[in-house]
Amino acid sequence: MPMRDTLDFLLHDWLRVDTLLQRPRFEDHSVETFTQVLDTCERIAREKFAPYNRLADTEEPRVVAGPDGETVHLPKATHEAMAAYVESGMLAAAQDFEMGGMQLPCVIQMAAKAFFSMGSVALGGYAMLTTGNANLLRVHGTAAQREVFAKNLFAGRWFGTMCLSEPQAGSSLSDVATRATPDGDDFAADTLGPRYRLRGNKMWISGGEHELTENIVHLVLAKIPGPDGKLVPGVKGISLFIVPKKLVNDQGQLTDERNDVALAGLNHKLGYRGTTNTLLNLGEGRFPVRGVPGAVGYLVGQPGEGLRCMFHMMNEARIGVGLGAVMLGYAGYEASLDYARQRTQGRPITGKSAGTGKDASLPPVPIIEHADVKRMLLAQKSYVEGGLALELYCARLVDELNTGSDAQKAEADLLLEVLTPIAKSWPSEWCLEANSLAIQVLGGYGYTRDFPVEQHWRDNRLNMIHEGTHGIQALDLLGRKVVMKGGEGLRTLTARMAATSESASALPELADYAEALSYAVQQLEMTTQAAWASGVPEQALCNATLYLQAFGHVVMAWMWLEVAVAAQQHLQDHALLPGKMAALRYFYAYELPKISAWMGPVSRGESLPLEMQDAWF
Amino acid sequence: MPMRDTLDFLLHDWLRVDTLLQRPRFEDHSVETFTQVLDTCERIAREKFAPYNRLADTEEPRVVAGPDGETVHLPKATHEAMAAYVESGMLAAAQDFEMGGMQLPCVIQMAAKAFFSMGSVALGGYAMLTTGNANLLRVHGTAAQREVFAKNLFAGRWFGTMCLSEPQAGSSLSDVATRATPDGDDFAADTLGPRYRLRGNKMWISGGEHELTENIVHLVLAKIPGPDGKLVPGVKGISLFIVPKKLVNDQGQLTDERNDVALAGLNHKLGYRGTTNTLLNLGEGRFPVRGVPGAVGYLVGQPGEGLRCMFHMMNEARIGVGLGAVMLGYAGYEASLDYARQRTQGRPITGKSAGTGKDASLPPVPIIEHADVKRMLLAQKSYVEGGLALELYCARLVDELNTGSDAQKAEADLLLEVLTPIAKSWPSEWCLEANSLAIQVLGGYGYTRDFPVEQHWRDNRLNMIHEGTHGIQALDLLGRKVVMKGGEGLRTLTARMAATSESASALPELADYAEALSYAVQQLEMTTQAAWASGVPEQALCNATLYLQAFGHVVMAWMWLEVAVAAQQHLQDHALLPGKMAALRYFYAYELPKISAWMGPVSRGESLPLEMQDAWF
Repeated sequence: MPMRDTLDFLLHDWLRVDTLLQRPRFEDHSVETFTQVLDTCERIAREKFAPYNRLADTEEPRVVAGPDGETVHLPKATHEAMAAYVESGMLAAAQDFEMGGMQLPCVIQMAAKAFFSMGSVALGGYAMLTTGNANLLRVHGTAAQREVFAKNLFAGRWFGTMCLSEPQAGSSLSDVATRATPDGDDFAADTLGPRYRLRGNKMWISGGEHELTENIVHLVLAKIPGPDGKLVPGVKGISLFIVPKKLVNDQGQLTDERNDVALAGLNHKLGYRGTTNTLLNLGEGRFPVRGVPGAVGYLVGQPGEGLRCMFHMMNEARIGVGLGAVMLGYAGYEASLDYARQRTQGRPITGKSAGTGKDASLPPVPIIEHADVKRMLLAQKSYVEGGLALELYCARLVDELNTGSDAQKAEADLLLEVLTPIAKSWPSEWCLEANSLAIQVLGGYGYTRDFPVEQHWRDNRLNMIHEGTHGIQALDLLGRKVVMKGGEGLRTLTARMAATSESASALPELADYAEALSYAVQQLEMTTQAAWASGVPEQALCNATLYLQAFGHVVMAWMWLEVAVAAQQHLQDHALLPGKMAALRYFYAYELPKISAWMGPVSRGESLPLEMQDAWF
Repeated sequence: MPMRDTLDFLLHDWLRVDTLLQRPRFEDHSVETFTQVLDTCERIAREKFAPYNRLADTEEPRVVAGPDGETVHLPKATHEAMAAYVESGMLAAAQDFEMGGMQLPCVIQMAAKAFFSMGSVALGGYAMLTTGNANLLRVHGTAAQREVFAKNLFAGRWFGTMCLSEPQAGSSLSDVATRATPDGDDFAADTLGPRYRLRGNKMWISGGEHELTENIVHLVLAKIPGPDGKLVPGVKGISLFIVPKKLVNDQGQLTDERNDVALAGLNHKLGYRGTTNTLLNLGEGRFPVRGVPGAVGYLVGQPGEGLRCMFHMMNEARIGVGLGAVMLGYAGYEASLDYARQRTQGRPITGKSAGTGKDASLPPVPIIEHADVKRMLLAQKSYVEGGLALELYCARLVDELNTGSDAQKAEADLLLEVLTPIAKSWPSEWCLEANSLAIQVLGGYGYTRDFPVEQHWRDNRLNMIHEGTHGIQALDLLGRKVVMKGGEGLRTLTARMAATSESASALPELADYAEALSYAVQQLEMTTQAAWASGVPEQALCNATLYLQAFGHVVMAWMWLEVAVAAQQHLQDHALLPGKMAALRYFYAYELPKISAWMGPVSRGESLPLEMQDAWF
């Protein structure tokens, strides 16, 4: 079944996007306009993204001389894909009409992005960064910042970046060492915001240099030194700045003058190569502004509020990463399914006892007829369709947060806090596994660069690392999200899970699954209690990653039961139904039992990771 | 701790290689000569292999014009590494003195190979193929074939290949379509063996073309047509042939005349790029011999016995693949351990309640101090040291098979039958996971090509595919090995496991583990029974891969307990002891519990993989 069929079922039958049309923000829309947007994006992704996914990998970004300083060469296909994306208006899809947007629900925007991520996740990277950047400025920027920067970003005239990491500080933002000092005595009077000069090095900057657009807007975390010239330790001293590649004059018009931001090198990656990734030097004096070294930057929000501004956007960014991981998995699933249907090899196992078996005089069968190949395809199906359901569910919650009633907003907020680490981490791990299974289905051919599956696997390996590593997500979940507000987030989530079990238990086809989910949720609650039994964070968190894995599988079991209830209600006699039921059955029979092995060390308070000594390795 | 320390402990304290010196075959050796061999190999691997592992990946094999037809260009470093390897005499390390060998035990040869696999698994590929090829000819070839082909291979003057797969027949050898017909009326009188002409295409041929050596000896599976000109279906019709790249005259001397074997293309792989991989066309008339198209080949053994000859060597080849997977894991473990000790980032979790935590005014610590990093390093340690123990244990069994008493031979034979699928598959899966964890420890840096861990991961992904896929190993284990001879192989293995539990239960530090192993073995026996309860192979085998995974983890739990007993006996007050105990503890606390989730569907006879329909995907 094409992905689109499942996507439409999830949006319309399960998540009931039609109900959003009753809300004032979406009143100009209809189910038809939603469909048109998806059709357009599906077409652009098919025509401009997918055919060039391999090219964007092999024709890796490289440094070339530009009109002013070094720049990055990208394939012509990347320019064309970006132009088509910009033209589609998707950069501002969810924005207000007055910002040039379409006021689409987040869930429709996320569904539309699915096509681009599936076609070429790396090409989609530029758009994801630009939308995230502009969205942040829309919320936290001044009127002038919104007008000058956010609008040009949403229109796709300029692209954006997020400059958080530094060579010595990846996951640990408290160690950011980039310094921002006031630029002149009139620094507070600039129309674009308080003006600073920044000096420092930023690492892992995706889209940090290119010529896709006439300008690049960097959002940079930096610290403003105190009166003693020292930087405040920790994350509280971090502020956020707009640092454009080319300067903007006080009428907000682009000039030809370079800001003091220099490309210091490219990172040569295992995958995801279509998104260029850079090391940038800020303020080293390569392009002095008005004769003075230092990159000009405009403060966004209040000093010391940088991380708060940044994290405001983190939910959507992390759901976006999760979606990218899912769609890489989906692309591999479809490629391996296609191969398994066409490739003939081997014969069915027959005979009545061990060792007997295969009648070599019969013609070979398509490998999809072998049980182990079906198992590998089922695993992929359960991971990628389940993952897609989770990302859409979260996006739907963002719509509740943005446009729901106060009660809906409060509930959505709690649920998103708890679910976001899962939406980001679960597909990063399991849709990577899906990609490995896709390689395995293709066998030797899957190991060659003549087929797309090896690239999916390489590309997907990034997702456990960027936007907060697996370990960081785990600490966020167990150390903050499930304990915040006295555990209200977790209780809200388990209440929803209980409601799903209840609906399912009324359907004979699903009653057993409802019971299994209830039991798993109970185990999860007990494990959460046990983890924090000591009350000592160091002890509680030393197996946080296992907790994250178990939590993720319980969430996915819940998602599959949700989807199955909708399938039973809306897909009777529909060709999609048996596949959904099979994937549900697969997940509960083969996957959900894994949670015991992960919960064990958490529940028992296994302290080996604390006791282990460096010298013993 | 350097790998060598663990290797020496395993060989001397655990596997007691000194006891082999009492056997006539090894009487010229001593513990010192064993050590000298390991020292030499460690040095060559360090000087000639490891420094060029990345180069062999980036300077990928490519087709160039050769003096006669197209050939494959390989980096100069590959030539030098091979020359050093040949000079070391390791190609024939385990062979008789009269074959130019050293009569080393297999376990010492395997230990020596560990260094090369760790330095560059892809460069080591040529040697592994050549040894395997020559070894087969030593056993199954005629005196002339041994003299001409095996001796030149063992001496490294010529290199060898194994030509099994064809484009339409990878795992399914019964569909081999290469035809071998008698070459002239005097075909049976050739001094090198019955002479045939072969026509067909061979795919995935590693080392199939290069100029590392003056000649290449292909061992080719083909079918001799019956009187009606038809090929016998199935594996029974397969015969084995020696097909040299350059012809040999009837005095056994190399000539300049090309055989009709043409390079048809290179496979461009995800990893393992240092080993060139080719598509060969046999007998298409590119290099007609005496004016007639057809590759000249000499029959090895009897017609129809091709697979039997090939599989005779399969145990050692599969142990070799397993060792390669282990050593890639080990290389990643050491690289990530090294990084974790040097890289500073973040601070210890402190404080007394959730959310509190880190004192940003303290300097950052080496990341090895973080619990999750220690967990990832512990996992790697348990996979790679446990994997090394398993491969050496199997190699030691090969020595029993070759030089033990009749009773020892019989027992070793049974154990190797059952253990070989595990020795091949377990490290292919779990040392790949180790490589992924190594990337995770390095974070963004691990995702770049500036560090070696991404290449380890790419290289290791091949090991679940070649030399029998994971699925094939699973069918071999559950469909043949554990049921053969009324289950005698499995009983022999579980008896050994019981003996280990018994030894361990006498040691207070190990008593709990002994009990856990006994319970796991019991579960494994019950699962085996349950799998075959229906007696219907199709049903029994539909979850064979899960059975393989569970079996593998039980074997590894046994290996760790074996190692721990030896550690308790021989390493008291030794710096290695606490690390061995920690890895044991890790494996039993975090890994062994996974077996329940795998055994479940097997025990319950979950038939979803059989019931699943193509149309439901």
